[in-house]
Amino acid sequence: MPPITLKVLAKELNMSIATVSKALRDSYEISADTKEKVCALAKKLNYEPNSSACNLRSNVAKTIAVIIPGIANNFFSLAIKGIEEVARKYNYHVLVYQTHDDSELEISFTNALLNGRVDGILISVSSNTDQIEHFTSLSNKIPVVFFDRTFDGIPGFKIITDDYDSTYKATRHLIDRNCQKIGYLLTLDHILTGKQRLCGYADALKDRDIQYNEALIITCDTQTKNYQTIKSFIETQKPDGIISSIEELVLPCYSACQELQLNIPGDLKIVSFSNLNTAALLNPSLTTITQPAFEIGEKAATILFGIINKTAIACDETIVLKSELILRDSSLTNTFITQ
Amino acid sequence: MPPITLKVLAKELNMSIATVSKALRDSYEISADTKEKVCALAKKLNYEPNSSACNLRSNVAKTIAVIIPGIANNFFSLAIKGIEEVARKYNYHVLVYQTHDDSELEISFTNALLNGRVDGILISVSSNTDQIEHFTSLSNKIPVVFFDRTFDGIPGFKIITDDYDSTYKATRHLIDRNCQKIGYLLTLDHILTGKQRLCGYADALKDRDIQYNEALIITCDTQTKNYQTIKSFIETQKPDGIISSIEELVLPCYSACQELQLNIPGDLKIVSFSNLNTAALLNPSLTTITQPAFEIGEKAATILFGIINKTAIACDETIVLKSELILRDSSLTNTFITQ
Repeated sequence: MPPITLKVLAKELNMSIATVSKALRDSYEISADTKEKVCALAKKLNYEPNSSACNLRSNVAKTIAVIIPGIANNFFSLAIKGIEEVARKYNYHVLVYQTHDDSELEISFTNALLNGRVDGILISVSSNTDQIEHFTSLSNKIPVVFFDRTFDGIPGFKIITDDYDSTYKATRHLIDRNCQKIGYLLTLDHILTGKQRLCGYADALKDRDIQYNEALIITCDTQTKNYQTIKSFIETQKPDGIISSIEELVLPCYSACQELQLNIPGDLKIVSFSNLNTAALLNPSLTTITQPAFEIGEKAATILFGIINKTAIACDETIVLKSELILRDSSLTNTFITQ
Repeated sequence: MPPITLKVLAKELNMSIATVSKALRDSYEISADTKEKVCALAKKLNYEPNSSACNLRSNVAKTIAVIIPGIANNFFSLAIKGIEEVARKYNYHVLVYQTHDDSELEISFTNALLNGRVDGILISVSSNTDQIEHFTSLSNKIPVVFFDRTFDGIPGFKIITDDYDSTYKATRHLIDRNCQKIGYLLTLDHILTGKQRLCGYADALKDRDIQYNEALIITCDTQTKNYQTIKSFIETQKPDGIISSIEELVLPCYSACQELQLNIPGDLKIVSFSNLNTAALLNPSLTTITQPAFEIGEKAATILFGIINKTAIACDETIVLKSELILRDSSLTNTFITQ
């Protein structure tokens, strides 16, 4: 028996090869009725798509790229796991590019990807990005979906978390634990993600009539070691609570407390974003705003493949997944361990 | 004034464009005398290589790939930092592929890279690799350098650490702290790296007349959660010391001790590979065999670019960088904190 190819199916169904191919990929361009006919015959004849032949024909590289600030971050490594899980189903390879929060490098990557090397791109923007041209020129040529860190005004699909709400909740939690002087380790303040988090903090203070104090907002770098900055902040300002807006900042914060012989949570309570895998094993265990990192990656990839396979249409939509405040010893006191 | 191109330089020097180009790239094919002449003129005329034009001409993608077991590992994220530092100097992008210790995925990546998409590849092999054909066919086409995890008999440059010596030293340290029943969390046992580590452990026991006991060797998976395996091992075998052969296993080990209400280091002393960034902040702080991760990446990339730029020749050589045993509370006792 000759192998069952798209051509055989098309001939049998009296359709074009393109129609059969699109129907099998569940394209929105094809009617439900046609899809049903094609799938029924494909099933009956045990049609198995020869992916490598398909690749040669359509010149599809079968690769997607993920552009992220950095891999040394448990949020991103989990998000990539989610992305890979979806990519595996579609038999795609996943390439990872790290920007290290350097927008020049980000632009260099997006330019290099304009040549069609990959079929789709997932982007979490670099924190010092201050323009969107390189994203829009990319989106015009290749399917792009943004996740987690986005920049104001970028058109396209975005999968993010409830940055405002979760930071509000975390700040409220510290206020409920009698913190009156809550420091905020600020990053990502150029991009929407960071702005939302800071707003959540500011509004939680306001709602409890605590004065917003600029001296308690300490701007950190996402890529360098912030140990000295954080240590001198704690020494001079003597905060009784700290919110760390990314996981990279909470480790120097712990080290500074160790060095200054401050007791966590006795002298200072700490809550941090996001998915640090050792949070429960730190001394003391760390209260985290845990993002649904795997799910964010999974959802972003699912939408990207929808656009690639034309079962979804690229549009300007934002999907928000909820984070969870996981209480641990770093923000509790003996008298308040009540959850 | 017309732009100074390779062609202008070549004409002026009465050499071929290829010779001038190779001389500027410091190729070993060109004599020192010729290089000197070319560089002097290039300097005099303020020649600036137009990298994008070069790329188009020579079809160089200006990209290297790194194939690693996983990014959610501080050793690999540091090694990649070292690789990127070197790549930046040469104006190359770095692509990261994760195998998740799946040799089929590894083969799929190496096959995809055979098409010349990248100019060079750095590989840390997947732990369930049991063949080398896909590596040799890749090495025959593209410059390849191996780092950290290597497989027996792979030809080519390898940058590794002193796996045998450092595990020997760590085991000896536990014996010196009165451990008599030292468990070993085994991984990577199919590949050279894992074999060397296990040998170091076995020989350290032998040299102190402690019986090697198979019941104390617990085989773990590198990619799944090993919590139950490790917990029931600790419960049934009651080891007084544990060597964890990769960082991913020490976190479930800490969690199991927490659950079993065992005191570290009182009931059980722990030493672990390798670069866990929270080691000093864990409860208790963790003794580590810290690999020179950044330097390994840097060295491997430097050699790879040497081969790419023909200033080095691909050969069968192994470079060994030393790891360091960093003592922390998890392997010390009150009476023995003497280092």
